Amino acid sequence: MQRIANLLAIKDNKVLLLQKPRRGWFVAPGGKMESGESIYEAAIREFQEETNVIPHDIHLKGVFTMVIKSGDRVVDEWMLYTFVAKGVEGTPFEETREGKLAWHTIESLKTLPMAQGDRTNLVFASTKQGIQYGTFEYTQDFELISETIQMSIEQ
Amino acid sequence: MQRIANLLAIKDNKVLLLQKPRRGWFVAPGGKMESGESIYEAAIREFQEETNVIPHDIHLKGVFTMVIKSGDRVVDEWMLYTFVAKGVEGTPFEETREGKLAWHTIESLKTLPMAQGDRTNLVFASTKQGIQYGTFEYTQDFELISETIQMSIEQ
Repeated sequence: MQRIANLLAIKDNKVLLLQKPRRGWFVAPGGKMESGESIYEAAIREFQEETNVIPHDIHLKGVFTMVIKSGDRVVDEWMLYTFVAKGVEGTPFEETREGKLAWHTIESLKTLPMAQGDRTNLVFASTKQGIQYGTFEYTQDFELISETIQMSIEQ
Repeated sequence: MQRIANLLAIKDNKVLLLQKPRRGWFVAPGGKMESGESIYEAAIREFQEETNVIPHDIHLKGVFTMVIKSGDRVVDEWMLYTFVAKGVEGTPFEETREGKLAWHTIESLKTLPMAQGDRTNLVFASTKQGIQYGTFEYTQDFELISETIQMSIEQ
């Protein structure tokens, strides 16, 4: 089962997003964990590789079970771990083979084109206290079928 | 890849632990996630099934990459998600086919027999603020080869 770690860097009320070429959708930079890595190590490594930026003060904001369905059948399932970083060091690449990188307002997360579950995840990560958990079910064409969300804040 | 969710219930300065019959080691009750479950749902379901107790105010305290090695070769790898619950409702089973359940002092987590990585995980979960991340490498006989730990607290 794949494990994906991504990271939303926040600076001056803006977030660093990657616009993927295929659909033009925006995502938080990240990628696949390697064998033996922790989710924390993977998020930092993948973010640095994709952006050229070093993240500081990172914290886990979301853990999601991602399910791809064809009719009633589960055709893929993986885990997504989303971190935020409240400090960043360095200037991001403008464009890589992964897509275009740019700073966008936190507010724009509500309207920029992206997978619907990513919006739930990134709006929470950038504006709320605590951790979100849940399951996103998608079609193979990445249309959201259902989302089930829980959250908790440390007492 | 397996995903295991467990939960450490804390009440009156005590924690509910399961003593497994094989080695006599103590663990936090939990078990395998099912397809499509969130880690939050899995931790609650598994804990209730194993203990007969309903946990409240649960929060994620640890996410670990668990690696079993034979020499240099990785023979198994899975993810462990550890929650705490600061409130519980109901009386735990005393004994199940999984082992014996009982309340133990938080202090006793430092000395009760258990996997070394579990001690690192459960002592943190019961006494510290924030989330721990990391990788535990074990032999097939569950002797700890290495542990690499990171942690963060929400800003």
